[in-house]
Amino acid sequence: MNYPGRIAIIGGGTWATALAKIVLTQETHINWYMRRPEQIEDFIKVGHNPSYLSNVPFNLSRISFFSDINEVVNNSDTLIFAVPSPFLKTHLEKLKTPISDKFIISAIKGIIPPENLLVTDFLTKEYGVPSDNIAIVAGPCHAEEIALERLTYPTIACTDLAKASAVARIFTNRFVKASTSVDVSGIELAAVLKNVYAIAAGICHGLKYGDNFQAVLVSNAVQEMERFMEVVSPIKRRIFESAYIGDLLVTAYSSFSRNRTFGSMIGKGYSVKAAQIEMEMVAEGYYGTKCIMEMNADYCINIPIVETVYRILYEKVPARIEIKRLREEILK
Amino acid sequence: MNYPGRIAIIGGGTWATALAKIVLTQETHINWYMRRPEQIEDFIKVGHNPSYLSNVPFNLSRISFFSDINEVVNNSDTLIFAVPSPFLKTHLEKLKTPISDKFIISAIKGIIPPENLLVTDFLTKEYGVPSDNIAIVAGPCHAEEIALERLTYPTIACTDLAKASAVARIFTNRFVKASTSVDVSGIELAAVLKNVYAIAAGICHGLKYGDNFQAVLVSNAVQEMERFMEVVSPIKRRIFESAYIGDLLVTAYSSFSRNRTFGSMIGKGYSVKAAQIEMEMVAEGYYGTKCIMEMNADYCINIPIVETVYRILYEKVPARIEIKRLREEILK
Repeated sequence: MNYPGRIAIIGGGTWATALAKIVLTQETHINWYMRRPEQIEDFIKVGHNPSYLSNVPFNLSRISFFSDINEVVNNSDTLIFAVPSPFLKTHLEKLKTPISDKFIISAIKGIIPPENLLVTDFLTKEYGVPSDNIAIVAGPCHAEEIALERLTYPTIACTDLAKASAVARIFTNRFVKASTSVDVSGIELAAVLKNVYAIAAGICHGLKYGDNFQAVLVSNAVQEMERFMEVVSPIKRRIFESAYIGDLLVTAYSSFSRNRTFGSMIGKGYSVKAAQIEMEMVAEGYYGTKCIMEMNADYCINIPIVETVYRILYEKVPARIEIKRLREEILK
Repeated sequence: MNYPGRIAIIGGGTWATALAKIVLTQETHINWYMRRPEQIEDFIKVGHNPSYLSNVPFNLSRISFFSDINEVVNNSDTLIFAVPSPFLKTHLEKLKTPISDKFIISAIKGIIPPENLLVTDFLTKEYGVPSDNIAIVAGPCHAEEIALERLTYPTIACTDLAKASAVARIFTNRFVKASTSVDVSGIELAAVLKNVYAIAAGICHGLKYGDNFQAVLVSNAVQEMERFMEVVSPIKRRIFESAYIGDLLVTAYSSFSRNRTFGSMIGKGYSVKAAQIEMEMVAEGYYGTKCIMEMNADYCINIPIVETVYRILYEKVPARIEIKRLREEILK
């Protein structure tokens, strides 16, 4: 493995664009895969991503674009995945070349359906990537703020701490300061859960619950998150660290959070379909909710907030009724 | 002790007014003490508090007003204190009648200077009120949201749990649901600390730090709060409960938070004096910062966020420089 070697960004969305911006502050050149050749054409025409973070200009001479996944993989040593979790499989199905000898950085905050595997477990199991050759990028990182070069502190987790540190160097510059961790599964789980809780916070906001209630909801979400992680990934961790609770806070409280926005539309009475069409974006927590519910069928952990979001999104129980029930259940 | 008996609100500010609204949903009559007779005259004239929460109408036939602290004490069995902590002494200095046989509910989120006593300890030590006859009201409770009848979950703490439950009944109605605790000191400390952290959050906001950074700051504040409380009031507690972390969240993130607003003005370059004049309100965290720093002279706990706020507010070190130093100290 030639590590980090030639770095590729896989994905053309908001988060992929923010990651490209970060990596290009340290590296002189990147490969960049986007599924649609038209998006690449438009990118080259206008000098920025035509659809996302269009306020971030790129020096095109430092980027090689690819719309063929096999080509980008063959030309790269480190692959940074930044596609929505439900679409990762579709992208990888086209692979004819192995990725087991690559270093993988997953920036995906999600679970792979229908097996409900964490992204890192999926890559190890299905593609033979050794777990110590996979790192994740997590923590409170709104792409929109990275675009504005606002100070951001991500966490890089890898079971091999030396490799986490090496990745952290790529993710550290004047406006990004990465720290490291070995708790890969815990941080991945927290990243999925926090999206669900952000939807819950959004729903309550949409229903006109106030800040007092929101604070109680988020306090309960932290407790629920800890409860779930203690069972599913039982190692000693300090949940106050920003990779866990910080990520939850930024997602639940920031106006940049698409999961919160999605929830807020549901709370205001939009259907799931209408909210998704209106937003033109995937709120990852929508899929995460289902995955966590399905995972929990084996564990039976008490996770009333996730269950509430599930019933609202998937069983179409009116949000007003469900949140009232949640209140009565979790708050004496 | 005739408990709760006749209930009096002590104080004429925002929080006192919200508490009066809550108590009057359960009780048919209250006594209400305000220091300035003119405020009472105006209140009676317009049917609401002339200066604070003026959108909340009161039925005057259910209120007896007092501007004499001795008179209100003589006519009441339960006293609800809702004055800013630095002014409690001034109010009580006029007392000629004992309060040791009264039941006291402290809604004061602060420490009494210059001795730096928690309000409950001060009342026991200086006025002989047995500690099991003192309860506190805490948790995420913006008065402005209570005025709007938005659902609020306060916590009532008393070392005597039965009494806490009895008080909780007074603080429970269609829009307020009180729960109970015995951790009086811990909740009081958390309430003081959270104001300081809200000032820190406001300062960073004023300096144009973004939501990503804010989430890291608040995560660190939770850790600092836990560290401080473990030493100063060492009992087993779950800091995720809303009386601790929920109160911090609502204060650090809500636009209703005057401590956050105060910090934000400081971050934007106002002097402390100018910010206080502009706001026409006391940001309790200003005093809390000094009290915590003085308390910590005995403990020497690592509380870099409180120290940073102290240096900005009291030593006039430019906020920009201090927050940069904090970043480098607490965030690798």
